[in-house]
Amino acid sequence: MQAWKGLLEEYREWLPVTERTPHLTLCEGNTPLIYSNQLSDRVRANVYLKYEGLNPTGSFKDRGMVLAVAKALEEGSQAVICASTGNTSASASAYAARSGIPSLIVIPHGYVALGKLAQALIYGARVLAIRGNFDQALQFVRESAEHLPVTVVNSVNPYRLDGQQTGAFEVCDALGESPDRLCIPVGNAGNISAYWKGFKAYHEKNVTSFLPKMCGFEAEGAAALVRGQAISNPETFATAIRIGNPASAHLAMAAVHESGGCIDSVTDDEIREAYRLIAAEGIFAEPASAASVAGLLKLYQKGDIRRDETIVCILTGNGLKDPDSAVETAAIEPLVIDASLEHVTAALEHML
Amino acid sequence: MQAWKGLLEEYREWLPVTERTPHLTLCEGNTPLIYSNQLSDRVRANVYLKYEGLNPTGSFKDRGMVLAVAKALEEGSQAVICASTGNTSASASAYAARSGIPSLIVIPHGYVALGKLAQALIYGARVLAIRGNFDQALQFVRESAEHLPVTVVNSVNPYRLDGQQTGAFEVCDALGESPDRLCIPVGNAGNISAYWKGFKAYHEKNVTSFLPKMCGFEAEGAAALVRGQAISNPETFATAIRIGNPASAHLAMAAVHESGGCIDSVTDDEIREAYRLIAAEGIFAEPASAASVAGLLKLYQKGDIRRDETIVCILTGNGLKDPDSAVETAAIEPLVIDASLEHVTAALEHML
Repeated sequence: MQAWKGLLEEYREWLPVTERTPHLTLCEGNTPLIYSNQLSDRVRANVYLKYEGLNPTGSFKDRGMVLAVAKALEEGSQAVICASTGNTSASASAYAARSGIPSLIVIPHGYVALGKLAQALIYGARVLAIRGNFDQALQFVRESAEHLPVTVVNSVNPYRLDGQQTGAFEVCDALGESPDRLCIPVGNAGNISAYWKGFKAYHEKNVTSFLPKMCGFEAEGAAALVRGQAISNPETFATAIRIGNPASAHLAMAAVHESGGCIDSVTDDEIREAYRLIAAEGIFAEPASAASVAGLLKLYQKGDIRRDETIVCILTGNGLKDPDSAVETAAIEPLVIDASLEHVTAALEHML
Repeated sequence: MQAWKGLLEEYREWLPVTERTPHLTLCEGNTPLIYSNQLSDRVRANVYLKYEGLNPTGSFKDRGMVLAVAKALEEGSQAVICASTGNTSASASAYAARSGIPSLIVIPHGYVALGKLAQALIYGARVLAIRGNFDQALQFVRESAEHLPVTVVNSVNPYRLDGQQTGAFEVCDALGESPDRLCIPVGNAGNISAYWKGFKAYHEKNVTSFLPKMCGFEAEGAAALVRGQAISNPETFATAIRIGNPASAHLAMAAVHESGGCIDSVTDDEIREAYRLIAAEGIFAEPASAASVAGLLKLYQKGDIRRDETIVCILTGNGLKDPDSAVETAAIEPLVIDASLEHVTAALEHML
């Protein structure tokens, strides 16, 4: 099998890549689509998990970022900049490092533990903490960028969604057809919008013969789209989708309506249970990733899943980004015993 | 491009896989081989980084574990068992979960923080802590297993090395030929032995036309092979290779001698500097991974690298497994300023 060349090469004809776009890659994309025996049995359908945690920086953000940074280079930018404390800053810093340009990260001072920025820091990000809140940080990023030779790579950057379409392409390429349904976590609502754009692009060129139902799931404490209004203090265990005012709200709602899908919310308990279920099949995802599976289970309970349909659940990030949630959720204390062969053998036999 | 089917399918003819071996996979393998511009310039050669951190559980261990667990199932085992506090227990627990059998992990009590076991715990491992040391834990695992219907998946399991050969296969498949040299971290010495076995297998069947020089690098504080004797209290920043009595010592030394390669040690400072260099190109690896790159730089300084040779450095694990080392190594404190557009813009301009 030929080696994977990264998204800009592999999906060149589907992306706004020109002859002047640098061949930037960390071999992003090409993530596993894993058939889930347990979930398929449970909802009487064919369920696949798209494990986006195996992207280079551990989340789906790399799909959009590789294109956004490549275009920034093409346009002569001297740096990329974003306001982010999580997956976006990690991805931006990695691709900036790969490109040999600085990444500037603006965060609200005191808002985030340094550990959350571990990736950005080791990739060499330059971090500015403002005495203000996150919305101000984002506002300053946008306004400052107008005066500096830098490119904003927050979700306002249109290339992010263009690049994230490739998730849909890979799903269709692996299945040989569109799935019947896509279940996907919704935070800022960009990913569901990008997947829909990708599914439509493949369908228009007859790569696939139909379109999937797009089903997006917000955390109940941050369910702005479900409620139809912004939420000023979003709260959820699934921190990566703790967003009260999704930037791509209109695109996401269009995807849901055009596809005959749904937008719904899932509780933290449901997310936690799904997080555990996924791990019980050997896949360690970020808590937010589990919103897609929690949503699927909710749809099944409501009788909305047709027998034997093909469903893909997107797992957006790697569980290694949040080991504390794993320890807390597993809630297992090791059994402690004396060091004798008799005791150990008896204890192990009891554990079988 | 066709979807990757996992190692047991993709390299079926090269592995001890029979008709009765279950089709076990988490889509392991198929990891990126990334050309390093900075390292290639620095050592005047063609340097590639094999990023094993993008395996399903974040380390190269998945290559051997998928085969070891599949064979355990084939042989009718009811569980897998190992003594491990790190990558081995994570991998064993993931494949056991995927297979629907228990994984039993034996650790020395008080030796390891629960966070290091986060992966094993969330995958559902059953953990037994003995009041003793690591060597006793391993000894009990081996002896208890003789009395129970379980399979030991520590490095004594021969299928581990068989599966790890696939790393060499992938390197050759991606390059279209053997590299001139392989640089690889050495802890328990199994991986260097497995790569050599894989390179020889490809060469014997004329898939490749020559064999690489095998260059293994131990951490100075755990350099048992370099010193030619076991080390009772190994110490190094690179915890994944902090092993004083390598199980595969003889195989590793044979690989080095047969290939005309070398075994050498690198200091913690050299490992840390290499760790930073790799990240500066956008790749976040475990500290132990950086021993391969530190070793390459040492060889270059000694004048041992031929101009334009093709070199592959193995990066054995994902940096997300050890975020503390990233924060500590980056040693960056964010610049804190007031929330005004003027201040922010000036600060950002200064950062460019």
